[in-house]
Amino acid sequence: MANAKIPVGVLGATGAVGQRFVQMLQGHPWFQITVLCASERNAGRRYADACTWLLRGDMPESVRDMVLQPVNTELDCRLLFSALPSGAARQVEAELAAAGYVVCSNASAHRYDEDVPLLIPEVNPEHLALIPVQQRNRGWTGCIITNPNCSTTHLVSALHPLHQAFGLRKVFVVTMQAVSGAGYPGVPSMDILDNIVPYIDREEEKMEQREPHKLLGTLDGDRIRPATFGISAHCNRVPVRNGHLEAVSVEFQTRPTLAQIREAWQSYRPLAQQMGLPTAPDPAILVREEPDRPQPRMDRLAGSVPGMATVVGRLREDPLFHAKFLVLGHNTVRGAAGGSILNAELMVAQGYLGPQAAALAQGQPSSLALGG
Amino acid sequence: MANAKIPVGVLGATGAVGQRFVQMLQGHPWFQITVLCASERNAGRRYADACTWLLRGDMPESVRDMVLQPVNTELDCRLLFSALPSGAARQVEAELAAAGYVVCSNASAHRYDEDVPLLIPEVNPEHLALIPVQQRNRGWTGCIITNPNCSTTHLVSALHPLHQAFGLRKVFVVTMQAVSGAGYPGVPSMDILDNIVPYIDREEEKMEQREPHKLLGTLDGDRIRPATFGISAHCNRVPVRNGHLEAVSVEFQTRPTLAQIREAWQSYRPLAQQMGLPTAPDPAILVREEPDRPQPRMDRLAGSVPGMATVVGRLREDPLFHAKFLVLGHNTVRGAAGGSILNAELMVAQGYLGPQAAALAQGQPSSLALGG
Amino acid sequence: MANAKIPVGVLGATGAVGQRFVQMLQGHPWFQITVLCASERNAGRRYADACTWLLRGDMPESVRDMVLQPVNTELDCRLLFSALPSGAARQVEAELAAAGYVVCSNASAHRYDEDVPLLIPEVNPEHLALIPVQQRNRGWTGCIITNPNCSTTHLVSALHPLHQAFGLRKVFVVTMQAVSGAGYPGVPSMDILDNIVPYIDREEEKMEQREPHKLLGTLDGDRIRPATFGISAHCNRVPVRNGHLEAVSVEFQTRPTLAQIREAWQSYRPLAQQMGLPTAPDPAILVREEPDRPQPRMDRLAGSVPGMATVVGRLREDPLFHAKFLVLGHNTVRGAAGGSILNAELMVAQGYLGPQAAALAQGQPSSLALGG
Amino acid sequence: MANAKIPVGVLGATGAVGQRFVQMLQGHPWFQITVLCASERNAGRRYADACTWLLRGDMPESVRDMVLQPVNTELDCRLLFSALPSGAARQVEAELAAAGYVVCSNASAHRYDEDVPLLIPEVNPEHLALIPVQQRNRGWTGCIITNPNCSTTHLVSALHPLHQAFGLRKVFVVTMQAVSGAGYPGVPSMDILDNIVPYIDREEEKMEQREPHKLLGTLDGDRIRPATFGISAHCNRVPVRNGHLEAVSVEFQTRPTLAQIREAWQSYRPLAQQMGLPTAPDPAILVREEPDRPQPRMDRLAGSVPGMATVVGRLREDPLFHAKFLVLGHNTVRGAAGGSILNAELMVAQGYLGPQAAALAQGQPSSLALGG
Repeated sequence: MANAKIPVGVLGATGAVGQRFVQMLQGHPWFQITVLCASERNAGRRYADACTWLLRGDMPESVRDMVLQPVNTELDCRLLFSALPSGAARQVEAELAAAGYVVCSNASAHRYDEDVPLLIPEVNPEHLALIPVQQRNRGWTGCIITNPNCSTTHLVSALHPLHQAFGLRKVFVVTMQAVSGAGYPGVPSMDILDNIVPYIDREEEKMEQREPHKLLGTLDGDRIRPATFGISAHCNRVPVRNGHLEAVSVEFQTRPTLAQIREAWQSYRPLAQQMGLPTAPDPAILVREEPDRPQPRMDRLAGSVPGMATVVGRLREDPLFHAKFLVLGHNTVRGAAGGSILNAELMVAQGYLGPQAAALAQGQPSSLALGG
Repeated sequence: MANAKIPVGVLGATGAVGQRFVQMLQGHPWFQITVLCASERNAGRRYADACTWLLRGDMPESVRDMVLQPVNTELDCRLLFSALPSGAARQVEAELAAAGYVVCSNASAHRYDEDVPLLIPEVNPEHLALIPVQQRNRGWTGCIITNPNCSTTHLVSALHPLHQAFGLRKVFVVTMQAVSGAGYPGVPSMDILDNIVPYIDREEEKMEQREPHKLLGTLDGDRIRPATFGISAHCNRVPVRNGHLEAVSVEFQTRPTLAQIREAWQSYRPLAQQMGLPTAPDPAILVREEPDRPQPRMDRLAGSVPGMATVVGRLREDPLFHAKFLVLGHNTVRGAAGGSILNAELMVAQGYLGPQAAALAQGQPSSLALGG
Repeated sequence: MANAKIPVGVLGATGAVGQRFVQMLQGHPWFQITVLCASERNAGRRYADACTWLLRGDMPESVRDMVLQPVNTELDCRLLFSALPSGAARQVEAELAAAGYVVCSNASAHRYDEDVPLLIPEVNPEHLALIPVQQRNRGWTGCIITNPNCSTTHLVSALHPLHQAFGLRKVFVVTMQAVSGAGYPGVPSMDILDNIVPYIDREEEKMEQREPHKLLGTLDGDRIRPATFGISAHCNRVPVRNGHLEAVSVEFQTRPTLAQIREAWQSYRPLAQQMGLPTAPDPAILVREEPDRPQPRMDRLAGSVPGMATVVGRLREDPLFHAKFLVLGHNTVRGAAGGSILNAELMVAQGYLGPQAAALAQGQPSSLALGG
Repeated sequence: MANAKIPVGVLGATGAVGQRFVQMLQGHPWFQITVLCASERNAGRRYADACTWLLRGDMPESVRDMVLQPVNTELDCRLLFSALPSGAARQVEAELAAAGYVVCSNASAHRYDEDVPLLIPEVNPEHLALIPVQQRNRGWTGCIITNPNCSTTHLVSALHPLHQAFGLRKVFVVTMQAVSGAGYPGVPSMDILDNIVPYIDREEEKMEQREPHKLLGTLDGDRIRPATFGISAHCNRVPVRNGHLEAVSVEFQTRPTLAQIREAWQSYRPLAQQMGLPTAPDPAILVREEPDRPQPRMDRLAGSVPGMATVVGRLREDPLFHAKFLVLGHNTVRGAAGGSILNAELMVAQGYLGPQAAALAQGQPSSLALGG
C-alpha cells in the first residue's frame, strides 16, 4: 500500500539533477516523494510552473501540482536527496543533518570530509560505518552521505574488482564527457558544436587526488585509510549529450592476463546486487567484446536498470602498463541522481533508516507511517 | 613567370585527400598542376564532371576543365602527389618510381619499407638520404617519399623538440580524431552523431609500433635506427569535422621543468622554417597558455600557413609521468595533403628535383621548362 | 502459447530497417519471427554473424542463431515484412505475392501501383479493399500492402482529422529530416556535421505528387480517387539522429478556429485505436501546448507505443493560409518498420490472414499452427 | 596614413557581436577603433582581461591593451557601432545620438521607430533620408541607423531584386537558424545536440510584421510607406554553428519564369557594389546551380567579402506559389556586425560623416584628423 512507502524529499528539485531525482523516484518500490524544495524565489509555486522539464518524456503527473517548499527543518520526511549546487550545499545539508535528516547528497561539498561516507554501494558499503562517527563528532541526529563525481563513479566501479584481485598501482585515464555533466544551461552550444573543450573545472583534481583513493580506501577504526595507487587524468568535454566514455590504462601490483581481468569483471557480484537493491543493476558491470564498444549512444542505457550499469570493453594489452580498456557510464543517472538513490537503498536495507524501513526493504512493508 | 613553375600531378585527384592536394596547390609559388589522375572509370572526364567538390569554397577554376588521366608512365610532369588508397598505392607508386617519377605519397603502403623515407621536414629531414639507397636497392630512377598518418604527424611534431632536449622514455596518448580523417564517405552520420566510436582500424598499431619510432629514428648509414621509447595509444573518433586533438603524458630520460618544456617548444625553429619553405608554418609549434586550449574548431587553422602548424597547450605536471599536455593539428591539411607538399618542397630545396628546381626554390626561377 | 503466434518473416533483415523490424517484432503478441532473409551473399550465415547491429541495446537473443535464408517461395510463414531496397523490391515482392505470401512492404516500389494499398491504418483502412482487386488483376494468391514514406506518414497522420473536418485546400510543408531516414551507411558525417543538406533525392516529389493524395483519396469501386488539395514541399536533411520535424501551413476549404483544430486532433480516435491493435498508439496524435514543442529528441518516442505516435504543436494562425503548426514523428519506427507492422495488424484483425489469425487478434488464440 | 582613418568606437565590445565588430574592423581601410565600451562592471579593465575571445583565431593584438570605457558622451570618436543588448540600447543609443554621435546599431531597440532607418545598403539606401527627419524630430545632432535581424537580412537581400522586377505578393519562409544567432552563451548544448528547437522568441513576428515591409518600403516625404505583401514565417533553431538557411516560396504580382528570376539575381548590382564600399560583397547575391546547395558549412563564407554575400540556390517551380528556392547567409557577419559596418560605409560615402570622411571614401584621405 502506498502509505507504507518511505516519504522522501528532493532539495534543488527544479534543476537538471533534481529533475532526474524526480524522474527516477517515480514508481520506486520503497520511496515516495512527499517534499520538493527549491530556492526562496520558487518556493510556493507549483512544480509544473516553476520547472522547465528537461528530460525526455513529460514531467510525472504526480508531482506537477506539488508546491515547492523552501528548505527548512520542518520538512515532512526523514530522507532527503540533495541536488543542491555545491556552494549552497555545504551549510544547508549540515543544518538538515543536525536537525535529524538523512541527506543523500550528489553535491561535492561534503565528499571530502573525513567522517562523511563517499559511497558506491558495490564498492565500499562498509564505509557506512562512518555515519555513527559523523553523528558523534558533530552531535547530529541525522547524517550526510555522498556519492562521487560522475566521471569518478564509473571509473572506480570498473576498477574495483580489478583492485580487489590484482591491486592497482597506476591508472592513466582520459575522459570524454557528455555535456549534461555540466548541468543546465551548462555548456553553451557555441562552445561545443564541431569542437571539444579539453578542460573541465576541477575535474582532474577530483580524479587524481580525492575521490578514487577515498572510495577504494580501507575502513580503519573511525576513519578511511586512502588507497595509495597513482592516477593521471585528462578530462575533456565532447559533443555528446549523455554518457561519459573513459580510455583507461592500468598497471597492477600483480600482472593479470586479459582473461583474468575479464573473469574478474564477469564474476563480480557485490553486496548491492546480492541484496537485490531496487536500483542496483545486475550485473553491475557489463563486458562488451566487440572491437568498437562501448559507445555512449549505444550503451549508456544498457543493463537491467537503465543508466545504472558500468560498461567496459576493448580490453587489450597496454605497451606501457599492463592492460587498457574503455569504461562507459551514464553521467546523470548512475553518475548523479541514481548514485544517491542507490546509496539510500543500501542505508535502508542496512537499517540506517530504522527497522520499519528495513522491513520494507525485506519485502515486509509495515503498515505504520514512516518518516518525520 | 608561370611557365617556370614545376609541373606536378595528383594521383587519386577526385577523392577527399586528392581534392585537398588540388586546393593547396592553387597559387603555389613553385608547383603547378599539369596532371590529374583518377581511376579508369573516371579517366577521360572533365575534373568538374567527375568530382563532387567536398571542401568549403568552390573547385578552383583552373582545374575544372582538366581532363582526368588514367595512371600511366607517360604523365607530363616529374613530381607526383599520391592520394591513392593504400591498396592501389603499393603497386602503382612503385611502377611510377621505377619509371622515374618522384612520388610524394600520403598512402601508408610504403611508409614502413626500410628504404623509403617517412618524413616530416621539421623532424627528420636527414632521412632523405634514404632516397639514393632506395634507388640503388630497387634500380629505380624515381623514388617514393611518404608522410605519416594524420594523428602521428602532430604527435611527433610536438614531441620532436622535447625528444631532442630531454629524451623520450614513455608516451601515453589518447586521440580524439575528426571524422574527415576517415575520408569520404567515411564515417556514417548514424554512427557518430551524439556518439564517440572508440576504435579506428589499425590506428593504434601505427602509433604504437611503426611511425613515431621511425620518424624519430637515427640515420645510420643506409638505414634508420628506430627510436626506442615506449608508446601506448587509445584512438577515438569524435563528432568533430576537422582537427585531431590528442591528450598526451610523457616521461623523459631527463626530467625537465614545465618552463623548460615550454622553452623547447618556443625556441624550436627547425630547418624547414629556416629555409622558408612556402608551406612551412612559422612557428612550427604554437603554444597556447589558456586553461582550455587548444580546441579543434578554434585552433585547427591557426598559424602562418592555415592548417600546417601543430598547436600545443594545457602543459602541466603529470602525477605518473613527468608532464602532460594537449596536441592539436589539422588532419587533412598538415596530416595529409599538406604533409606531402611540404615534403616535396624540402626535396626541391635540397636539390632532389634537380638544379633548376632548386634554383626556383632559392628565388631564382629558371626560364627553362622543368619537368618531364 | 508461443506456437499459436503467427509466423512471420523479414526480407532484408540485416539492413537498418530490417533490424528495426526484428527489434519491434520481439515480444509481439501476435507475430513470431520464423524466417529472416538476406541477400545471396549472406544467406546461410547466422544472423549474429552477418549483421552489425545498429540499434541501441543488443540484438535480441532469439534471433542471433537464426540462419539467414535467400528469398524463395518456400519460406515457412505466410506473412512477410519487406525491408528490401526499392530496386530489388519491385520484382521480388511481386513473385512472393504471386506465390501466396502477404507482403507488408516498406519499399516504395509498389506504392504507386493503382491496385496496391498505400496504407496508414488510422487514415485509410478502407483501402484494404484493393487487395481482392489486386489479386484478381494479377492472378495472385498473396498480395502486397505498402506504407508511405517516413516524412509523408506523419504529415498525413496529422492532416487526416483536419481534412475530415475542414477539407484541405493547400498545404505548405518544410521538413527537417533525421539522418536515419537515409538508411545505413546513408549520410556521410562529413556532409552533415555543422551543416544542413537541403535536398533529399525524390522526397519532394513523393510528398507533392504521389503519397498524400493517394492516402487521403476515396475508395471508388475498384480504385482510389486521389484527394485534390495542393502541396508544396521543401525537404531538408539535418544533423539529428532520429525524428522528422515538419513545419506546416494549411489552408482549408472551411476556415476553422484554432480551437476547432485542436479539438479535431484531441477527439481523433480512429479504427486502429478503437480496435486496440497492439502497435497502435493511443492517442494516435499527441498535442503539445508549449511554445517550443515538439522537438525531435524530446518527443520522438512519446506516447503509449514508443515511436508510433504523431506529435503536433505550436498551433497558431498563419498570415497567408489559415493555420500553421509543427508535426513530429519517428522516422524509422512509425515511418518505416512500425508502419508495416501496424498495417499487418490491421489485416490480421480484418481477416485478411484468415480466421485463425483473426481469432488470435480477438484474444482467442487458436491452438492450430498458422502460416505456410 | 593611419591617422587619416575615421576613429570609431564599439559599444558592448566584450559580447559575441561586439567581438565580431572588433574582428571585422581590423585592417578596415576607412575605420580605426579608438574606443571600446563595456558595462560598468568591466570598465577600466584591459580588453584582453575582460573579454573571453569566442571567435576563431586570436584577439587582434591592437585591441588587447585598450582600456574599456563606460558609455558616456565624452568618447573620442564620432561614429559608434552598437552591439548593446536591446534592453540597454533603447536609452543609451538615444543619449549618444542626442550628444552628436552617429550610432550604427545592431540592436532591435530603435529599428521600428518611424524616423530611424532600417537599412541594407543594397536594398534601401534612399532611406538614409530619414536621418535629417530624425534629427529634426528629436533635436539630435547625431543619429541612429539600424540593420535588420539576421534572418531578415538575407531573406530581404534575396527578395529585393525579385520585388523590383516582379513585385512580391506572398512569401512563405521556414528558417533553420544557427546557434550563434542567439549570442553567447545563448543556446544550451543540452537543448540542441541531436535536436531542433522550433521556436525563437519574437523572430517570426519580426519577419512577418515588421522588418521586411519597412526595408522594402517606399520613401514618401518624411516617412516610409511599408511594402504590402504577405509573409508567413516558421523559425527554427538547428545544430549548426553559423549560417542561417531559409526555405522560401514566393508568389509574385507578375509570374516570372525561373530563367527570369535567375537573371534578376545575376544582373543585380546595386549602389553599394557600384560604389565599391569596402565591405560590400560583389556580387551581392551568389547563385548556386547544384541540386543540394547552398549549405551552411559550405557557403556561409562564400564570395568576395567572407560572410557578407547572400547565397541562393535550388530555384524551382512551386506547386502553390510561383517559385521556391533556398537562401543562405552568415548570421553574425552580414546578419549582425557586418551589416552595421556596411551601413556606416554607405553613410560615409554619402557624406553623412562630413566631407573629410567622404573624401577618404573616395580615395582622397585627408591629412586632418577626423572625428570627435
